[in-house]
Amino acid sequence: MFGKTQRNDPAEAELASHRLMLRAGMIYQVSAGVYSYMPLALRTLRKIEQIIREEIDAAGGQEVMMSALQPLEFWEQSGRSEAMGNELFRLHDRRDRPLVLAPTHEELLTYMVKANVNSYRDLPLIIYQIQTKFRDEPRPRGGLIRVREFDMKDAYSFDVDQDGLDVSYDAMAQAYRNIFSRCGLETIEVEADSGAIGGKDSSEFILIADAGEDTIVLCPSGDYAANAEKAVFAKPQQDAEPLLPIEEAHTPGIKTIDELSKYLKEPARKTLKAVFYMAMGELVFVVIRGDLEVNEVKLSNVLGGAPGLRLASPEEVQEHGLTAGSASPIGLNGIKVVADDSVDMGSNFLAGANKPDYHLRNTNHHRDFEADIVDDIALAQRGDSCENWARATAMFWIAHYPDENGEPHLILMGCYGIGVGRLLGATIEQNHDENGMVLPATIAPYDVSLVALNMQNETVAESAQALYDELRGAGLEVLFDDRNESAGVKFNDADLIGLPIRLVVSLRNIRDSVVEVKRRSSSEAETVATTDVATEVKAMLAG
Amino acid sequence: MFGKTQRNDPAEAELASHRLMLRAGMIYQVSAGVYSYMPLALRTLRKIEQIIREEIDAAGGQEVMMSALQPLEFWEQSGRSEAMGNELFRLHDRRDRPLVLAPTHEELLTYMVKANVNSYRDLPLIIYQIQTKFRDEPRPRGGLIRVREFDMKDAYSFDVDQDGLDVSYDAMAQAYRNIFSRCGLETIEVEADSGAIGGKDSSEFILIADAGEDTIVLCPSGDYAANAEKAVFAKPQQDAEPLLPIEEAHTPGIKTIDELSKYLKEPARKTLKAVFYMAMGELVFVVIRGDLEVNEVKLSNVLGGAPGLRLASPEEVQEHGLTAGSASPIGLNGIKVVADDSVDMGSNFLAGANKPDYHLRNTNHHRDFEADIVDDIALAQRGDSCENWARATAMFWIAHYPDENGEPHLILMGCYGIGVGRLLGATIEQNHDENGMVLPATIAPYDVSLVALNMQNETVAESAQALYDELRGAGLEVLFDDRNESAGVKFNDADLIGLPIRLVVSLRNIRDSVVEVKRRSSSEAETVATTDVATEVKAMLAG
Repeated sequence: MFGKTQRNDPAEAELASHRLMLRAGMIYQVSAGVYSYMPLALRTLRKIEQIIREEIDAAGGQEVMMSALQPLEFWEQSGRSEAMGNELFRLHDRRDRPLVLAPTHEELLTYMVKANVNSYRDLPLIIYQIQTKFRDEPRPRGGLIRVREFDMKDAYSFDVDQDGLDVSYDAMAQAYRNIFSRCGLETIEVEADSGAIGGKDSSEFILIADAGEDTIVLCPSGDYAANAEKAVFAKPQQDAEPLLPIEEAHTPGIKTIDELSKYLKEPARKTLKAVFYMAMGELVFVVIRGDLEVNEVKLSNVLGGAPGLRLASPEEVQEHGLTAGSASPIGLNGIKVVADDSVDMGSNFLAGANKPDYHLRNTNHHRDFEADIVDDIALAQRGDSCENWARATAMFWIAHYPDENGEPHLILMGCYGIGVGRLLGATIEQNHDENGMVLPATIAPYDVSLVALNMQNETVAESAQALYDELRGAGLEVLFDDRNESAGVKFNDADLIGLPIRLVVSLRNIRDSVVEVKRRSSSEAETVATTDVATEVKAMLAG
Repeated sequence: MFGKTQRNDPAEAELASHRLMLRAGMIYQVSAGVYSYMPLALRTLRKIEQIIREEIDAAGGQEVMMSALQPLEFWEQSGRSEAMGNELFRLHDRRDRPLVLAPTHEELLTYMVKANVNSYRDLPLIIYQIQTKFRDEPRPRGGLIRVREFDMKDAYSFDVDQDGLDVSYDAMAQAYRNIFSRCGLETIEVEADSGAIGGKDSSEFILIADAGEDTIVLCPSGDYAANAEKAVFAKPQQDAEPLLPIEEAHTPGIKTIDELSKYLKEPARKTLKAVFYMAMGELVFVVIRGDLEVNEVKLSNVLGGAPGLRLASPEEVQEHGLTAGSASPIGLNGIKVVADDSVDMGSNFLAGANKPDYHLRNTNHHRDFEADIVDDIALAQRGDSCENWARATAMFWIAHYPDENGEPHLILMGCYGIGVGRLLGATIEQNHDENGMVLPATIAPYDVSLVALNMQNETVAESAQALYDELRGAGLEVLFDDRNESAGVKFNDADLIGLPIRLVVSLRNIRDSVVEVKRRSSSEAETVATTDVATEVKAMLAG
């Protein structure tokens, strides 16, 4: 088999999935955030893809394959070339025409839908693909969790009205539940408002890893997943500029960041947002850059756990002498201030003045206020990816279809994504122990590790080969370890690769006409009569 | 179904496969040479991929998936970044690191093999992938035949010695024969010398289209396929320069282009090569730029057929007063001269002087000689792609493996490619008639077109739906045309899409408890008892 196992943990791998996939010889790093899949990984990814395909087909999806190369023009028309910034890989062809490597396919598919939807009778549609995406992540990390080139299932629904979109959305959400469950992933589903999507709530599927050491947050768009404790994601940096003196700005009736941003014509990232929480009976003033949102898991962590953490009510905010809609981090007394580290990524922010209808220009952390805790508490995908994506998606409601009376109507579009490699990474995060992966049978690259002890012994070699042939004949996928390696090396590698069932053929077992059978998830081995092994293995896999 | 059929031929499509795929709504053009695959095309491509996978697996292949993004450095080290020129898509990431979009994967895989082959025991290996390639073709054309982004099966064998390479090569060649045959492609296999590959001949699979109107040449590396009659491929242009006076150059013992090029330190593209053929008993003097080779199919075509076309013997050349090894196109009398149009792509060529040990500098077509026929007669893949690729491939024999005694040996690498979309294009070139595609059952997107006439009639709608459910239950793939369209539209579309079998449900048939059954390849329809349809269809597909 192409791919060597490694005994030692690679130094660069922080996440268990990254470490184990490298050690098992499943992935090969080409460049930062760019991997080749070795045969073991590819077999598993293909199984995940097949599960995805079956479930999205069952939800009414039609599979297509769109191009990665796209004219930059598509992205300029949608306005997303700017929004994507450096994340968008750009290039020029030999005739100097600007192209992009698509990070997602709303733009192109909209053109395809325009060309192929002539009437309301052509709707609804759910179109999907499993295709390679390119995003120039600022800090690729975590093996397959955050990469620059990756396979993604991206699906797009097109409906004539909100009721139709709800039906499509529900079908997709159910497909997602089925996919995660079939892949052996435990998820917690969180309803999340996504106003820009047009009133329909979206779901986040939060995955909690076994050991509690890592929390992987996976958003349904597949755009982002992170270790929520360590919490690294790209907050757009802003150019340093000299600190300017604070100025009061009159902002009649302005309460939200969105309103403020529009009224004073400053981007949201030049504002500071105040969000109030109650943690163990106390008000917590959270400051975060206006383009970001608070990740409550992270906030809870930096507060040392904070059971019962919740948003404060407007009354609770007022009780502390704060002006909701224009609360200021400046001049606070006796209120704990937790700042997202984005407050240090920029300067001269717009912030509340703590009096109605006024805000302050040129507010700066350290100079004008000092937070008690500064840490990364931003909700990566809401602030970084999902929200941006959602906004961009909303811009795509430009396609029209004629109804029964020939009147033009907007087509409502929904977007749904799953990163295939990321799903594998998340599954391994949840399914491993200290010795290696413990892969669910549905996605394991093979069903069975067949370990032959002492292959130089002819009896063992023949017996193992015969068993291998028999199991394959019975439709089982078998990884036959026929190397001249010690029992220890073979057992360690079998544990590392983590196939559901391990079979051991040894001279002693052959004499007794038995084979040792062990589930990867169990520490107990049993012996099964050689003639019954195929049947027994099939039963175990089904069970 | 996503994708609309078109009644009229798209103006831009010259090749039948291109025209029919556009008309059937199978492909959507994103940009020049960049397509999205609509559901019908994707279903067919997946079947072709599966056939390829099964055959390459049977040949001992292991599937991987390598990245498209690669550091430019890999290509600078191999020397191919320059050789590829503008065909190589280049880009920079956000940290300004130069990257390429891989047009092929010898470079990267060599690194992966170095990391995973520690000993002769790790060999032989056949590694393959079905993956998206990017090549900035100068003149993309022909639908899926010549594109800038395409799926390719690329396989690479690694062996300890020439005997091993021969075994791998033979296994791959057999896999190719099986793949083409299973896809319904008729190929003619041509042995071709490829010295740079190291003594092992390579095969070309030449596909001849049905009607004789088009000849598609597909080389095993998958790099190139062209309509041999119209024959467009990229001959590297040379800068225009002023015509210089002819000079004699002393070239003692120099006979081949290679020797000439080395001796006078001029690239082969600055030379003119003379090749002699016998066509219908007459000597033909063929002139072609020294970096290109003659395509005998094209030559035969420009000579109006020329049955029995063959290379002339040295004796036949001498009989005409020509000096083999230094024959000149200048001053010929009574000998037909056919020039490849590359003689006009450059100036001041080195050519033969028609006396031993001398050549002429600054030879120019039109000024110094006039060909009787000027046309594209170059063997695209030998001159343009294959030969370059082969040369580059040879540079990859830099990986070493230690043998039994720990001595380092070179690993011999073989490269084998098939363009998946191009294979589909070629199959359609061979399998169509004036009404549309006639797809082989093995790769058709569905088995059956189920045409219901007058869907507004409830009896018809119910009957057709029942038959659809029954056929699907029997494991058949059915495209159910349940649109409210006329019989004519439905029949035309069924012919256009070209599924192997068409079933017609009509009120009259329902009264007789029969279904009309027709093979796409036949003009005869028959009626089959409704209860027997599934069995009958399966028998027809198998037969």
